[in-house]
Amino acid sequence: MTANVAVLGASGYTGAELVRLIATHPAMRVAALTADRKAGQSMAQVFPHLRHLALPQLTTIDQVDFAAIDVAFVALPHGLSQSLVKSLPSDLKIVDLGADFRLTPEGYQSWYGNEHVAPELQAEAVYGLTEFYRDRIRGARLVAGTGCNAATVQFALRPLIEAALIDLDDIVCDLKNGVSGAGRSLKENMLFAERSEDVAGYSQGGKHRHLGEFDQEFTKLAGRDVRILFTPHLVPVNRGILASCYVKGDPAAIHAALSDRYADEPFCVVLPMGELPAMSHVQGSNFVHLGVAGDRVAGRTLVVSTLDNLNKGSSGQALQNANLMLGLDETAGLLLAPIFP
Amino acid sequence: MTANVAVLGASGYTGAELVRLIATHPAMRVAALTADRKAGQSMAQVFPHLRHLALPQLTTIDQVDFAAIDVAFVALPHGLSQSLVKSLPSDLKIVDLGADFRLTPEGYQSWYGNEHVAPELQAEAVYGLTEFYRDRIRGARLVAGTGCNAATVQFALRPLIEAALIDLDDIVCDLKNGVSGAGRSLKENMLFAERSEDVAGYSQGGKHRHLGEFDQEFTKLAGRDVRILFTPHLVPVNRGILASCYVKGDPAAIHAALSDRYADEPFCVVLPMGELPAMSHVQGSNFVHLGVAGDRVAGRTLVVSTLDNLNKGSSGQALQNANLMLGLDETAGLLLAPIFP
Amino acid sequence: MTANVAVLGASGYTGAELVRLIATHPAMRVAALTADRKAGQSMAQVFPHLRHLALPQLTTIDQVDFAAIDVAFVALPHGLSQSLVKSLPSDLKIVDLGADFRLTPEGYQSWYGNEHVAPELQAEAVYGLTEFYRDRIRGARLVAGTGCNAATVQFALRPLIEAALIDLDDIVCDLKNGVSGAGRSLKENMLFAERSEDVAGYSQGGKHRHLGEFDQEFTKLAGRDVRILFTPHLVPVNRGILASCYVKGDPAAIHAALSDRYADEPFCVVLPMGELPAMSHVQGSNFVHLGVAGDRVAGRTLVVSTLDNLNKGSSGQALQNANLMLGLDETAGLLLAPIFP
Amino acid sequence: MTANVAVLGASGYTGAELVRLIATHPAMRVAALTADRKAGQSMAQVFPHLRHLALPQLTTIDQVDFAAIDVAFVALPHGLSQSLVKSLPSDLKIVDLGADFRLTPEGYQSWYGNEHVAPELQAEAVYGLTEFYRDRIRGARLVAGTGCNAATVQFALRPLIEAALIDLDDIVCDLKNGVSGAGRSLKENMLFAERSEDVAGYSQGGKHRHLGEFDQEFTKLAGRDVRILFTPHLVPVNRGILASCYVKGDPAAIHAALSDRYADEPFCVVLPMGELPAMSHVQGSNFVHLGVAGDRVAGRTLVVSTLDNLNKGSSGQALQNANLMLGLDETAGLLLAPIFP
Repeated sequence: MTANVAVLGASGYTGAELVRLIATHPAMRVAALTADRKAGQSMAQVFPHLRHLALPQLTTIDQVDFAAIDVAFVALPHGLSQSLVKSLPSDLKIVDLGADFRLTPEGYQSWYGNEHVAPELQAEAVYGLTEFYRDRIRGARLVAGTGCNAATVQFALRPLIEAALIDLDDIVCDLKNGVSGAGRSLKENMLFAERSEDVAGYSQGGKHRHLGEFDQEFTKLAGRDVRILFTPHLVPVNRGILASCYVKGDPAAIHAALSDRYADEPFCVVLPMGELPAMSHVQGSNFVHLGVAGDRVAGRTLVVSTLDNLNKGSSGQALQNANLMLGLDETAGLLLAPIFP
Repeated sequence: MTANVAVLGASGYTGAELVRLIATHPAMRVAALTADRKAGQSMAQVFPHLRHLALPQLTTIDQVDFAAIDVAFVALPHGLSQSLVKSLPSDLKIVDLGADFRLTPEGYQSWYGNEHVAPELQAEAVYGLTEFYRDRIRGARLVAGTGCNAATVQFALRPLIEAALIDLDDIVCDLKNGVSGAGRSLKENMLFAERSEDVAGYSQGGKHRHLGEFDQEFTKLAGRDVRILFTPHLVPVNRGILASCYVKGDPAAIHAALSDRYADEPFCVVLPMGELPAMSHVQGSNFVHLGVAGDRVAGRTLVVSTLDNLNKGSSGQALQNANLMLGLDETAGLLLAPIFP
Repeated sequence: MTANVAVLGASGYTGAELVRLIATHPAMRVAALTADRKAGQSMAQVFPHLRHLALPQLTTIDQVDFAAIDVAFVALPHGLSQSLVKSLPSDLKIVDLGADFRLTPEGYQSWYGNEHVAPELQAEAVYGLTEFYRDRIRGARLVAGTGCNAATVQFALRPLIEAALIDLDDIVCDLKNGVSGAGRSLKENMLFAERSEDVAGYSQGGKHRHLGEFDQEFTKLAGRDVRILFTPHLVPVNRGILASCYVKGDPAAIHAALSDRYADEPFCVVLPMGELPAMSHVQGSNFVHLGVAGDRVAGRTLVVSTLDNLNKGSSGQALQNANLMLGLDETAGLLLAPIFP
Repeated sequence: MTANVAVLGASGYTGAELVRLIATHPAMRVAALTADRKAGQSMAQVFPHLRHLALPQLTTIDQVDFAAIDVAFVALPHGLSQSLVKSLPSDLKIVDLGADFRLTPEGYQSWYGNEHVAPELQAEAVYGLTEFYRDRIRGARLVAGTGCNAATVQFALRPLIEAALIDLDDIVCDLKNGVSGAGRSLKENMLFAERSEDVAGYSQGGKHRHLGEFDQEFTKLAGRDVRILFTPHLVPVNRGILASCYVKGDPAAIHAALSDRYADEPFCVVLPMGELPAMSHVQGSNFVHLGVAGDRVAGRTLVVSTLDNLNKGSSGQALQNANLMLGLDETAGLLLAPIFP
C-alpha cells in the first residue's frame, strides 16, 4: 500500500524538501502539490532539481481532491494554516509545518498577538517533537511541527530538565542558523551579497517566537516557570542549526543522561564525552548530533546540539510523524546519510 | 542477496561518497574499508557524518579477506591503483575510480610519463562511462571510472561528434569546478581562505590529464584526430562541475540529438531548448542536466552540462557500473534526489 | 581644494562603494547623498559599514543644491539616468554609472528597445573606459561609465584587435561573475540559499546588453563588424569578474602586445607569460590583472582578465574619471591594495 | 620623514595584511620582508594581490640590516618570537603579533607549558590593547599584540568590569570566528570543502590559550579572580570575529558605560541601544562595532562586539601601536572604510 500525499505550500524550501524525501520513500507518493501564486506551473519550473521526478502540476488548494489524499503536509506561512486546516475534511490526517498549532491558546495569543481562528484544533493538535510525543503522535489526526530552533534546543535540554540536572535559572542558548530557515521570500538581508561573509544575531533579547515553545515545554517538564536566554545568529550556510547551550550542572551526569535517553533513538547520536558536533555532519539528513563538554570552571557544562533545519528541523520531522500516523516504519524514507562535503 | 563491498581508499571524499550511497543501497553492504595511514581508526573518526552507520573499522589492504568480497572499489591516488589491482585476486570484480586504467597504453604513457605496470589489465579494463559502454561494462571484471571533467564534457559532446553535427576543429570547453574534485589532501590553495571569494583557472593550455580521455574517446568516435580546448576553473562550491561547451553547429539539430540520445537514460535530463542548467540542481545526486542555446551569431551553439563530481562524476558512476557488473538494477541506490538548497 | 561630490542613488552597492572610496580620497568629500525610497534615512542605517563616517543624510534628488556640487555620480537603474541627467544643471560635471549614455543612438535603440530622451547628451557623453579614452575624459562634462563585463573583456581584447593579432570571427568570452553585479534589488535567484553552491549562466545566446558596447567598440577599432560570443555565469563570490577569452592568435605576440600596452598604466598588471590571474587578487581594488596562455593546439590563446566589478568595473572607474575631469591626480583615492583573504 | 618597516614573517596572512595597510600609510614604507621557507621569492609570488607594489624580496631574518629599520613587526608562530626578539638590537622598536609577550611569566608558563627564554623582555613588553594601554605603548620599545579573540571580548567587557556593572561569576562569551584566524598553515579541517557549510566549536571547556589573557586582564581590573566561559566557533567567513557576551547586569547602565568609554575613540563605535552589530560591517577595517540588548529576563544583557581578526584583531592593532611608538598620528593608515559587500 502506498499512501497518497499532498503538500500544501510546495513552492517553499520545506515543500521542496518534503518532495525530495518522499521521492525515495518506499510507501508514499506525491499526489497533489499546491502553491497559490505559482499554481499552473510545474514543480520542475519552481524547483529544477526535482526535474527528474514525475510529479503533479502545482495547483491551488481548492483544486485538490482530498478524498484521494491520505496525509496532507501544510507548509504555509504562519497565520494561514489555521483557517486552511479548519476548512479541510475533518478526517484528513494533517501535519502542519508552521507555527499555528504549536502553542496553547494562551501561548499563541501572547506570542502572535491575535486570536486563533480554530481553538478546537489547537486543543486537538499534538506537538510534533517525535522523540518525546511518539505515542500521542501515533494516534493523532493533526500534528503541529515544532519550530526548527525549538527542536534543536529541546534535544539538548529536555532530558536535563526532566532529570533536574541543571539550574533552571541560568540557561543560555546561543544558536548559529543556516539561512534556509528564513525561507524563499524576498528580503534584502537574505541576498547572497548581504549574508556571505557575515554573522549577525537577530530577534535577540527574548523576542523570538520560538520562545513560546520553550516556555511551554520546559515549564511543563519542570513543573515551574522556566525562561531561557536564546539568541539566534545567521551564518553563511544553507542548512543547519547549531545550538551552544551553556548550563550549570555536572558534565558527566549530563552526558550520561543524554546518552541514556537517546540510546535507542534511531536519529539521535550522542558523541563521546568532550567531543562537540559540527553542523556539516548532519546536512541533508534527519539526524541530530549532540555533544557535551565540561569547563575548567567547575559545575559548568556546554551542551551542543545540531540538526538540518529543513530536514530534522522541519520536513524530516514531519515525515517521521506522518510515518507514525500512517502506521508505517517510523524511519521509512529518512535514513539518507548526511551529505559531506 | 546482498553483495559485499570493499572500498579501498575510504578516507578520501570519493570513498566517503561511496559509503554514503551504499548506506541506502538495497542490495549492497560495506564489508571492508581500507585507508593506509588511517588504518585502525573508525570511519566515524575520519568522517563523522557517517557516525550513525554500523561500519567495519578502517584496515590496511592486506587485512582484507577478498574471498568474502563481491566487488571492490579502488579509490586510490593515481599510480597506486595499477600495482594494487595487479595484486588482487584475478576473479574479483573491480571498479577503479582513479586514472590508471582509463587510457590505452600509448595514451597512458604520453600523459603520465611512466610505463604502466599492468598493461594486460589496461587491455582488459572497460571505460566506465556507463551510458556509452553499458553492454561491455555488464560483462566486465575491471572497469575504469572516468575523469570527472571527462564525464561532464562527454555527456555534452559525444552524441554531437557521433552524428557529425559540429565542427571538430573548434570546440572550446570552459569548466567551472567545485573544490571537492581536488580531494582531501593538504594544499595551500585549497584552504577555505584561499578558495572562498575566488575563481581561477588551472592546468590551462592543454595540459590537464583528462585531455588524454578526450583525445582517446573523441578521436575514436570521429574516426580522425580531435583536439578540444579545455580549461577548468576552481569555483567556491563544494560539489559540481559545469561545462560550457562552445561549438559550431546548428542549435536545433544539436538539441534534438541530445534529446533523442538521452530520452531513455534514467540519469540524463535534457532541458527545453534555450534553457541552461545550474550546478546546484544536481548536487548530491547521480543526475546530469544538459542544456542547449543558440546565439545571435548564426551557427554557434552553447551546450552546457553539469553533474556532481563526487557522485555522477565519480562514486555514483562507479556504483552504477557495479550494479551492472553484479546483475543488479542499474539505478539501485542512485535515485536520491538532488539536495537544494 | 576639496571637491564636493554628490552621489545620486546612494543606497545601492555602487553608491556605497563610491562613498567607501571617497572616505579616504585626499581631495573629495561627500556633500550630498540621494536615494528615493530611503530618503530621510541616514547612510548608517542603509549601510552600517559606513557608520563611522560623518555623512549627509539621504535626501531626494530635488533637495540637492547642485550649485554647491563639483561632480555628481549618478548610480540609478538604467532608463532613469537619461531624464535625470537632462534635468541637471548644464555645467555640472557628471559621471553616470548606468547604461544610458554608453551607446550611440542606434545602439541604444537596438539594445534597449526605446527611444532615448536626451539624444544631445548621448552625443556629448564620453565613453568611460579610462585607459582608452583618457584624453577625451579629461575635457568631458558627461562621462558614461562602462558596463562591468564590458570593461573586463575590453581590457583583454582591445590591444589585440587594434593590432590585428586575432581572428575577429572566432572570439569566445566566458565570464564568471560575482553576485554584487546584480545590485541590491530583490530577486529570488539572488538569495543566499539560491546562489551559494551554484554556478549558472544567464543572458546566454547573444542577448546580454553589454554586447551593445562590445559591438560598438570592437567594430570601431577593427573597422569592420565584430560580433563576439559572450556568456556570463554567476558564481558564489561577492565581488569580481573573471573573463576567459578564447582567441585565435599567437600567444607570444598577444602577451607582448598586452605587456606593451599596459606598461605605463597604473592599474593594469600583465602577469608573466603562462600565468593566469585569480579573481580574489584584485578584490576591493581598482586593479586589473591580465594573463595569457598558449595551448597545445597551435594558434590558440587564452587571455584572462579579472577586476572587481564594484570597483574598477564601476565605482573605481567612475572615480578615476572624475579625478581626470577635475584635474586631480588620476590615481587619487584609488591605490588601495586588494584585500586578501 | 618616512619610517622604515620590517615585517618578519611576511608569508602569513597577518604579514600580508600589514603590507596591505602600509601600502597606503602616509609615513611608513616596507623596507624588509622575511619568510624563512619562502626566502628568495618575491612577495608577488607569495601574495599575488600585492603584485602592484614595489616591495623588497623575501629574505631570511639574518639578511636584514636592522640598523636601517625603525620598527619591526614580528609575525611568527608563537614560541619562535621570544628567542628572535631576544636576538634583535636592543634599541629596535618591536611590535610582536604573537603570543610570546602577552602574559606574565606565571601566566605564560601555565598556559604554554614551557619556560620563557626572555623573561626580562616579558617584563618590558607592554600589552598591546591600544585603547586601554595607550600611554604606556607610546613610550614602549616592545609591544605585545593581543590575541584576536582576547581583543574582541575585552572591548565588550573591560568597561563593565572596571565599573563593576556585571556579575563576575556569570560571564558567557560565545564567539563566531572567521577562518583566517587559523593562518595559512595546512590543516585538513581548514580545507574549503571542510569549512564551507559548517559551524563547529573548538578549544571548548576552558582550554583556549586566549583565556590566559582574559584571566590576567580581568583579574587585574576586578581586583579578584575572574574566570569567564569562552567558546570559539569556526564559521565559513574569511575575516571577522563576533563575540556574543551574556552577562548579568542592567542593559541601560551597560550601554551607557560603553558609550561613554568609547565616545572619543576613533575606532570603537557603539550602536544605538538594542541594535546588534554584524561581522561584515567591519571587514577589512580597524573598526570595532559594539551593541547592547536587554532581555525579557530582567537583569540579563547581551553585549556583542565584532572586529576584523586580521586587521583590528592583529595587524591593524599592531600598526596603531607602531604609530604611537613612532610619534605618528595614531590613526595614520588605518581609516580605510570597511569593504561591503
